[in-house]
Amino acid sequence: MSMTYEAAQARPNASREPDRSQLHVLSEAPFNAEARLTNQAGTITPNTAFYVRSHLLDQPRMEAAGWRLRVEGEVQRALALSYEELRALPGLSLVVTLECAGNGRAYMNGQPQGELWHYGAVGTAEWTGVPLGVVLGRAGLEPSVQEIVIEGADHGYHPESKQERIYARSLPRHIAVHPDTLLAYAMNGEPLPFAHGFPLRLIVPGWYGMAAVKWVTRLHASALPFQGYFQTEQYVLIEKASAEKRPLTRIRPRSLILSPTEGERLARGWQWLKGVAWSGAARIKRVEVSLDGGVTWQAAEWSSRALPYAWRGWQLPWEATAPGPVTLSSRATDAAGNTQPLEAEWNKLGYANNAIQQVHVTVAD
Amino acid sequence: MSMTYEAAQARPNASREPDRSQLHVLSEAPFNAEARLTNQAGTITPNTAFYVRSHLLDQPRMEAAGWRLRVEGEVQRALALSYEELRALPGLSLVVTLECAGNGRAYMNGQPQGELWHYGAVGTAEWTGVPLGVVLGRAGLEPSVQEIVIEGADHGYHPESKQERIYARSLPRHIAVHPDTLLAYAMNGEPLPFAHGFPLRLIVPGWYGMAAVKWVTRLHASALPFQGYFQTEQYVLIEKASAEKRPLTRIRPRSLILSPTEGERLARGWQWLKGVAWSGAARIKRVEVSLDGGVTWQAAEWSSRALPYAWRGWQLPWEATAPGPVTLSSRATDAAGNTQPLEAEWNKLGYANNAIQQVHVTVAD
Repeated sequence: MSMTYEAAQARPNASREPDRSQLHVLSEAPFNAEARLTNQAGTITPNTAFYVRSHLLDQPRMEAAGWRLRVEGEVQRALALSYEELRALPGLSLVVTLECAGNGRAYMNGQPQGELWHYGAVGTAEWTGVPLGVVLGRAGLEPSVQEIVIEGADHGYHPESKQERIYARSLPRHIAVHPDTLLAYAMNGEPLPFAHGFPLRLIVPGWYGMAAVKWVTRLHASALPFQGYFQTEQYVLIEKASAEKRPLTRIRPRSLILSPTEGERLARGWQWLKGVAWSGAARIKRVEVSLDGGVTWQAAEWSSRALPYAWRGWQLPWEATAPGPVTLSSRATDAAGNTQPLEAEWNKLGYANNAIQQVHVTVAD
Repeated sequence: MSMTYEAAQARPNASREPDRSQLHVLSEAPFNAEARLTNQAGTITPNTAFYVRSHLLDQPRMEAAGWRLRVEGEVQRALALSYEELRALPGLSLVVTLECAGNGRAYMNGQPQGELWHYGAVGTAEWTGVPLGVVLGRAGLEPSVQEIVIEGADHGYHPESKQERIYARSLPRHIAVHPDTLLAYAMNGEPLPFAHGFPLRLIVPGWYGMAAVKWVTRLHASALPFQGYFQTEQYVLIEKASAEKRPLTRIRPRSLILSPTEGERLARGWQWLKGVAWSGAARIKRVEVSLDGGVTWQAAEWSSRALPYAWRGWQLPWEATAPGPVTLSSRATDAAGNTQPLEAEWNKLGYANNAIQQVHVTVAD
């Protein structure tokens, strides 16, 4: 294989790791931090300002040189691919919004467990890498294969369950071989930062972020359903009426108002309300805005192009005439007809809260 | 107007200025540097790795606080907009490829004047800002207006013409008010770096980079054709047969092979040739690759989504079987039927060379 990329691309740029001044840190060990979305300008989130979700205490800082991607299990040829070999395979670049399944948990009633994310556990980047299906195709999946287990190199103590764990997740075969499921080595044109999984991260467009395994070192083709902790105990919906655990997959539609911000005092006159909207199930079809706490709604216009897996900017002019408090809300609807509920649907672990956001502002006298 | 963005967004991030280790510097004063395109991964070029074209010795480092955008001339209401006022106007984000009109000049015969750019005076970013037409609409253009003059704050000695100058350019009225012509304040989600025009840069999607005036401070609506130096003496095509000066506008179609690189030695076997292609006149329709110096051509496949103003990734598998030298070429064709010539079309100032690139590699025994 040819040496196609300069050495500079085989190491993260230290200045592109998460920048604390651009984040709200929720916990230091493991490191969890959310984006300050009011700084978002456009659809691309800079690498330094991108939210970070970590589960386990020992986070790897691997060098490209020694790293290998092992492909094992029910395959015709087990593989151990180097970083250079991976980068020499056919490439794909996709702009994808990642959202943590726990985003918005702080606004759920009933004190669910887990990190209390506000709205900032979401961001959008252009991810470049190799389709997972291309790598699996090289190995040759046996007909028996039902799932692909993706294993990260992160391990160590898990504070929530008080045990040593590794991070691993599985994908159904048909999702794993979808042409847009990506093993990404670059984020916004730069090598993946260490905090975002250098040298390799899985990207499953449209799925909540738990699927985006970082520091990938091993793919295991399996004929059996994977029973790992982060597959069956975490990232499942456990609802009131039933003890059934439904695994999380696609991101529910959501919109956020980024401007104005909660508690802001506005001058009277014309304002542009601005925000973003996304869904993992289908393209966003419309965003509506309410200026009266959800009684009446009007359609917003777009401020960026439609892309299949990325959030889209929206905006709406509003003439603030009457002084006093105003409750602003936005509501996204996707092409499959999914929309946002007024109230979060409770579940034990506090996932997938896509309830309509309320932003309270005051129009000055 | 509301204070919609945090103070962090009103200042460039010092770590996002051009990074010399990611660039080839052509001249220090004024600073001119091209991208190392073999590091390009995906379609977004990081701000630190984006080519820089500067004309004049004195480059401004303005603070957002004191800066104003003045709108003057044949308008109903002259304006002086602050940075905050501008950011509160309706927004637009577009992914746009910028290419310097002199890109590829080093490969033109007949020693044209000007900086000897190789192929790296090109890059792609998501630009976010306010449509120029929105600002002009606030001012109210008189019916007499034919052109909008866009003036940057850069000034000082111009080495090529040995005179003090300012940088200003004009746009025909219909281009100025096109909804995608943008006054950009953000680049890849970050405030514009100083080197890329903080606080405001014009982006004219599809046009060569000379139109993308940096450090914009003044718009002048005029009933007369603008006669500035960078409008009438530079950035014009002066061809052999005639003394006529044709102003440069839209980017001619071009494709580049980014991998493998010039002079590379390749192992025998399957390779993926990879590159990018773009055109300012219409969408790229196809990229073809030749492995025999231009005798036969085959169609490449895509590695990124189509966007109206951005380059698109392409790739092609190639089985290198015979040892020895091979000449690789790629050729882009846009939806308007424009394609690349085999030889650069000579012009006195060495602009708009979109001749087919040749990459010489050797297949090992």
